[in-house]
Amino acid sequence: MKKFWSDCLKNLNPYTPGEQPKEKIELKLNTNENPYPPTQLVNQAICTNGSTDLNLYPDPESDDLRDVIADYHKLFKEQVFVGNGSDEILAFIFYAFFKDKESVLFPDITYSFYPVYAKLFEINYQTIPLDENFKINLDSYASNNSAIIFPNPNAPTSIALSRNEIELFLKNHMNSIVVIDEAYVDFGTETALPLLEKYNNIIITRSMSKSRSLAGLRVGYALGSANLIEGLMRVKNSFNSYPLDRLAQKASIASFKDEEYFLSTCNQIVQTRNNFVEALKALKFSALQPSGNFVLAKPPKTIDAKSLYLSLKDKGILVRYFPSPVQISSYIRITIGTKEQMEKLVSEIKKILS
Amino acid sequence: MKKFWSDCLKNLNPYTPGEQPKEKIELKLNTNENPYPPTQLVNQAICTNGSTDLNLYPDPESDDLRDVIADYHKLFKEQVFVGNGSDEILAFIFYAFFKDKESVLFPDITYSFYPVYAKLFEINYQTIPLDENFKINLDSYASNNSAIIFPNPNAPTSIALSRNEIELFLKNHMNSIVVIDEAYVDFGTETALPLLEKYNNIIITRSMSKSRSLAGLRVGYALGSANLIEGLMRVKNSFNSYPLDRLAQKASIASFKDEEYFLSTCNQIVQTRNNFVEALKALKFSALQPSGNFVLAKPPKTIDAKSLYLSLKDKGILVRYFPSPVQISSYIRITIGTKEQMEKLVSEIKKILS
Repeated sequence: MKKFWSDCLKNLNPYTPGEQPKEKIELKLNTNENPYPPTQLVNQAICTNGSTDLNLYPDPESDDLRDVIADYHKLFKEQVFVGNGSDEILAFIFYAFFKDKESVLFPDITYSFYPVYAKLFEINYQTIPLDENFKINLDSYASNNSAIIFPNPNAPTSIALSRNEIELFLKNHMNSIVVIDEAYVDFGTETALPLLEKYNNIIITRSMSKSRSLAGLRVGYALGSANLIEGLMRVKNSFNSYPLDRLAQKASIASFKDEEYFLSTCNQIVQTRNNFVEALKALKFSALQPSGNFVLAKPPKTIDAKSLYLSLKDKGILVRYFPSPVQISSYIRITIGTKEQMEKLVSEIKKILS
Repeated sequence: MKKFWSDCLKNLNPYTPGEQPKEKIELKLNTNENPYPPTQLVNQAICTNGSTDLNLYPDPESDDLRDVIADYHKLFKEQVFVGNGSDEILAFIFYAFFKDKESVLFPDITYSFYPVYAKLFEINYQTIPLDENFKINLDSYASNNSAIIFPNPNAPTSIALSRNEIELFLKNHMNSIVVIDEAYVDFGTETALPLLEKYNNIIITRSMSKSRSLAGLRVGYALGSANLIEGLMRVKNSFNSYPLDRLAQKASIASFKDEEYFLSTCNQIVQTRNNFVEALKALKFSALQPSGNFVLAKPPKTIDAKSLYLSLKDKGILVRYFPSPVQISSYIRITIGTKEQMEKLVSEIKKILS
């Protein structure tokens, strides 16, 4: 009985996030969360004055937070947009800059929310195959195309492009809007940020869910020219005046005040990741060279990816298995946790393989 | 330089919320916030365990919160949808049920976000004039129309319809989807909730920003048949998997656990409002009979609405003045604060009038 559903509602093809199990599980390495809590400053910011001002609306423009982000990245506030997770921002970007375009291009293996947004706003899209090493193949993106989006590093491959590669690409795509989704950039990928000065056709999106340990608070941001950011503001103000609540604004500001903690947790994850990749290789996995806080790895011939995923699940260890696209269906994606968590995982994998 | 803007972005006509001044002001009675803080249980919920789990994503389906809301209203969880403020939910409703329809109908004087959503999703709409007493004129809504939305009580008039009037209307609109926006229902308006059992073509939206003192947290919900709620879930999952953060979910649950506080603060506001209306009438204002936590009132002949608004602003008192539509441009809208706040306002108005 879908009598009252609009045609476009019937046509939607919603996104499926990684499992968020209700029960406490042994080891959750399936949604690229950070194993460390946010800086203690976040806790203090949330609990100072507590809920005494929650009866009042938050600042609809999140000016204080945008000031802090602008300072941090040495930009102007007018170049910063914030949203209820970078997912909301990506949705606004699709609407603001991709709608009515002939087609938006993105990799065939990438963040699987992109085609969902395209469907939501009835936008044509074309996917461009990765190269044979699972790397984004920038040469294959037609230079006359008007809209392009890709993550750097890409997900779920965890493979990064260099800033030089991206700049070369931008030089050939001056008439396209190019969105670089840097959700995972803080784990060792070169950011495209310095290119903002020279190119006014790019938007960089960032998430506070990964490197800043704030997945539970839903905050993301976008950086670009004032003109593009103004466009995003218009969509926001046609959708929800107050997307970021008071606590999310306060906590995010606090996160930027503790650079030492931020750098040390990011470094720890990179170190753990590199050791983990070595351990996987010793077990005859082939692991793509990762630049995010996750690894896409193919188990040795003795076990297929799905069986390994299920065997780990039996032991209370969640990793992510993608039945499609077919190219990655022989891989599992593993989030990098703490050193101890990864050692536990390796030891369980050894048991399964033996 | 709007080179990269989509055509629909250029055509948007964003909503303007009431001023949220950065500076501390004397008296803020312009955005229908609750003068009381939320129940202390909210504070406890936020600070217990603090930010220790903020590195993990929230439950994307907000199951615990939806369970609590379902229990509270004696419905099933499948009849409850939650969102990042009722504004987000209204946007989803426009997309899910109004798009592709011939036209959506709403009052000519009402929540001014409705036409903004219509523009956002390229939906045709028609406005239906209020009657000569500023009441929603249900008889004027064509019974063959497929989509209708109105607030009850209406904003900014604060005038309510009875449940009987709404049921009579529903009987004549069995083939329309009818959305009743009950953001302000808890201040003395009859809810349409009991009608959910008999009619599967209605959605009721609720806000936690007003009667539950949680404007700063951005939580709203919608109630309807499982089929309609499923439609909203599909839009959500095509837009943002995790619209409600962990703290918003926990705090909202806590709010429903303190019925006594909820009822006593609502009652206090109703009492203060009724006394305030009497005081206005004594000053020769004509005030519409209010059913929300705000009053739309026309100043006496000696001063026009805009001048009164500006004079109050000079004294650090913010109320809301709408230059359009013309029918209400001779009125000001005043949020009901505490007893002391309203006494202060009355005394300042007296000074201005004298």
